[in-house]
Amino acid sequence: MNTNAKKALELHKRLRGKIIVKSKIQKLRPGEIQLIYTPGVAAVCKVIYRHPEQKYNLTTKWNNVAIVTDGTRILGLGNIGPYAALPVMEGKAVLYQEFGGVSAFPICLNTTKKEEIIATIKALEPAFGAINLEDIESPKVLEISDELDKSLPIPVFHDDRHGTSVVVLAALLNSLRLIKKDLSSLKIVIAGAGSAGYGICKLLCAARCRYLIVVDSDGAIYKGRTENMNKYKREIAAITNPKKEKGSLDDVLKNSDVFVGVSGKKNLVTPRMIKEMNQDPIIFSLTNPDPEIKPDTAKKAGAKIVATGSYLYHNKVNNALVFPHLMRVILDSRIKKITTDMMLAAANAISKTVPDKQLGYEHILPDMFDKNIQKNLSKYLASFKTSL
Amino acid sequence: MNTNAKKALELHKRLRGKIIVKSKIQKLRPGEIQLIYTPGVAAVCKVIYRHPEQKYNLTTKWNNVAIVTDGTRILGLGNIGPYAALPVMEGKAVLYQEFGGVSAFPICLNTTKKEEIIATIKALEPAFGAINLEDIESPKVLEISDELDKSLPIPVFHDDRHGTSVVVLAALLNSLRLIKKDLSSLKIVIAGAGSAGYGICKLLCAARCRYLIVVDSDGAIYKGRTENMNKYKREIAAITNPKKEKGSLDDVLKNSDVFVGVSGKKNLVTPRMIKEMNQDPIIFSLTNPDPEIKPDTAKKAGAKIVATGSYLYHNKVNNALVFPHLMRVILDSRIKKITTDMMLAAANAISKTVPDKQLGYEHILPDMFDKNIQKNLSKYLASFKTSL
Repeated sequence: MNTNAKKALELHKRLRGKIIVKSKIQKLRPGEIQLIYTPGVAAVCKVIYRHPEQKYNLTTKWNNVAIVTDGTRILGLGNIGPYAALPVMEGKAVLYQEFGGVSAFPICLNTTKKEEIIATIKALEPAFGAINLEDIESPKVLEISDELDKSLPIPVFHDDRHGTSVVVLAALLNSLRLIKKDLSSLKIVIAGAGSAGYGICKLLCAARCRYLIVVDSDGAIYKGRTENMNKYKREIAAITNPKKEKGSLDDVLKNSDVFVGVSGKKNLVTPRMIKEMNQDPIIFSLTNPDPEIKPDTAKKAGAKIVATGSYLYHNKVNNALVFPHLMRVILDSRIKKITTDMMLAAANAISKTVPDKQLGYEHILPDMFDKNIQKNLSKYLASFKTSL
Repeated sequence: MNTNAKKALELHKRLRGKIIVKSKIQKLRPGEIQLIYTPGVAAVCKVIYRHPEQKYNLTTKWNNVAIVTDGTRILGLGNIGPYAALPVMEGKAVLYQEFGGVSAFPICLNTTKKEEIIATIKALEPAFGAINLEDIESPKVLEISDELDKSLPIPVFHDDRHGTSVVVLAALLNSLRLIKKDLSSLKIVIAGAGSAGYGICKLLCAARCRYLIVVDSDGAIYKGRTENMNKYKREIAAITNPKKEKGSLDDVLKNSDVFVGVSGKKNLVTPRMIKEMNQDPIIFSLTNPDPEIKPDTAKKAGAKIVATGSYLYHNKVNNALVFPHLMRVILDSRIKKITTDMMLAAANAISKTVPDKQLGYEHILPDMFDKNIQKNLSKYLASFKTSL
């Protein structure tokens, strides 16, 4: 076990879990019990019963987020179940509060059946202002997200898809400020066709990337491929790979400009593969905890900009940069549905947070603690605000 | 709207809800993110995956309680739905943290179907150390509670049943310290055969009350009654009303010693009815927000001890005195199932918290802020502790 792992374990043992549900009343006085509880609270219930919209003013619904997982695809660890998933969801709740002031609570489900997950989330809705789907296996999670989008009155944020795609686009936009290439002429290869790969692919297409290839365990996805396809991969095939290139990652990565790794496979990329890419290659090796290629190795092989999803290296392209800040804006703007336009605006907002003079090959994204992330998100997403 | 209601509404408007999910880490430093989140947290996940019992040491499962309602029987307000129920559940969460150090989160369900409620709670279990069923209509909630008791690995505390019965027995035990009557020779009438009435009836029987009659909207419940019965009322009929008395509350209350009102009906009891009870009648008029008879009226009619469920009067016989403290002990002792013996011990513990010199007709129960409640509960429930 490495030092970071040991320290993490010690911290969790000492804290016995990372979150706590607290009262917003500083010090409860005896006379206040009759206001927050029976009989006074009955008046509040009656107002909400008569004027349902008041639930957003008189309860914490406006600020509560359910982080829902079934434990089937936790980090790079795979299907470790809902109990072992809990530390990740609690960590996420900590970041939600710390960076977004959001009250997030982990909902780790004892079922992996799609219909049961959908039914449970629908049943839970009243106390929450938004749902965050987390680390559920693909394509099941995409179907869950699509179904909930149709029926829930609150937004469904799918962090592996939405969050990751926003941070990747922001990182790419800023990389191109350093390496003077044009987004629409880049050849981009994405390794991984799960939630993250699908999300990134869709957002990059919306951002006018023209030459994009997504690779899964069966190689490049192209229109007409029959093996190992599903509804979402067919959608990918329809909008990417204009030359219908076939073959392995190794094959299609040749003469490309950007590699985005969300494959879940460590050491997937070798130095030779990077050497065969175009000049000044951009490598986003985002699989956690172990990337597709280590930053040092990639740099030595000629990569101009290297980023990973890990806090152990420079250039952290991690959705943690997005979700707490973006959720704050989603909740405050009472946004009902997450759209591609919103994600484009969010990526722009985050990329613009880094001023020219701070931008560098080892510093393509803002720091998580940068207060301007939220300010910019608010500004760029202002037009999506629901009139209340 | 009365003053208390107005103040309650103002407080809720100002706070915009009463709870917040916080991080247990005082001030998150940049270097700690890699411990609480990826990549460090993966080590914690792996330990729980290999040693499932560690979930109680490395996550907040040990301290999380889901307050689950479907909004069908909120206070005395009836079926007002899951949104209007939220202020009550949040109030409960505040009391849980304030008095028990418990992290409770409101789960207000968008379904009132028994099977869906059971399925949802089963699905939610992984992140919680206990379930608190709240304000769900009877007998449905009793069936839900019975079913979950059989299948869930964590305890199901049904506050309307367990909490209310404990506080009523504690209040009765202390009333008898003042009025020298014997528990087993008392004639006790309970108005209401829902969760509270059923729970009180069962616990008083277990405490050796011999002469107990439960009355519902069709009058006294007796063995052989056919109208408006269900499984739980048949159970009541089997263990109460030894003389098979029939008739209205008015009829059976004659020559009784104790009235316990959990009927949901205000002004159900008149001064004349109290005058027809035995000497030194004890009146627990517990319906909220408006009791079956007001304390002043009952006193004038000859009641020796009067209690209500409301914080507006003396002698608050409210389960709020029980649930935060008792849940603390349940969680710390890793109790897996709530039993009658446990409830008897809890009632004894709470009654003993009031020393002789403090006991009085207007002070039959300890104050909520009394630290000895929890100490006594720990002591009296020590034998129920699960060996870990």
